[in-house]
Amino acid sequence: MLFAHGARDPEWADPFRAVAARVAADRGDLTVRLAFLEFQGPTLPDAITGLVSAGHRSIRIAPLFMAQGGHLKHDVPKLLAEIRSRHPDLAIELLPAIGDVPELREAIAGWLTRSIPGARA
Amino acid sequence: MLFAHGARDPEWADPFRAVAARVAADRGDLTVRLAFLEFQGPTLPDAITGLVSAGHRSIRIAPLFMAQGGHLKHDVPKLLAEIRSRHPDLAIELLPAIGDVPELREAIAGWLTRSIPGARA
Repeated sequence: MLFAHGARDPEWADPFRAVAARVAADRGDLTVRLAFLEFQGPTLPDAITGLVSAGHRSIRIAPLFMAQGGHLKHDVPKLLAEIRSRHPDLAIELLPAIGDVPELREAIAGWLTRSIPGARA
Repeated sequence: MLFAHGARDPEWADPFRAVAARVAADRGDLTVRLAFLEFQGPTLPDAITGLVSAGHRSIRIAPLFMAQGGHLKHDVPKLLAEIRSRHPDLAIELLPAIGDVPELREAIAGWLTRSIPGARA
């Protein structure tokens, strides 16, 4: 379950849809879904209820957030408590935020390092 | 200039500080700074004024946002107009959002693909 913030602008979600499509293409053994915290649907609890109804018993949630702020520290634990009370037998794992994954920080830093030409000063 | 959203929780910025430190270490020819849209300082206009005062004439802004929503489509153009009117001779380039860089979408999808063990169903 890829979990993104959501925005009023529906185009905002395009990069997340592209990532979801790529993971789904690479991992035919997984069911890949996208859910949102606000502005866009489905919500995380609704998306998870959909997967449970389809027979899934183990769900990994990947928060596609740059860093751990109030949303991941406060809102997401509340959503997880709600989900666990609705689905007590479901195994749920929460993956780290993008910026908390050393490999992804390296990828961002590496891209910046390569994409900026030499200083002109 | 790495430009992040900012959050009430100061720890939120830690991954961005790590990315800035890594780019600074790799690119001694650049001056690397971090600025924020809200909740944390410095603001983008203040940080850029600091660089201009130090003699910089060319600045690249890398928005460390997952995707282009209202902030990048509306708030940032307003900030850039303000900055350009303050510093008419400054060369400014705006880099794409993280999720608009194919290489970084691939890195995120690849990490997800590798970090989720085989389906247990």
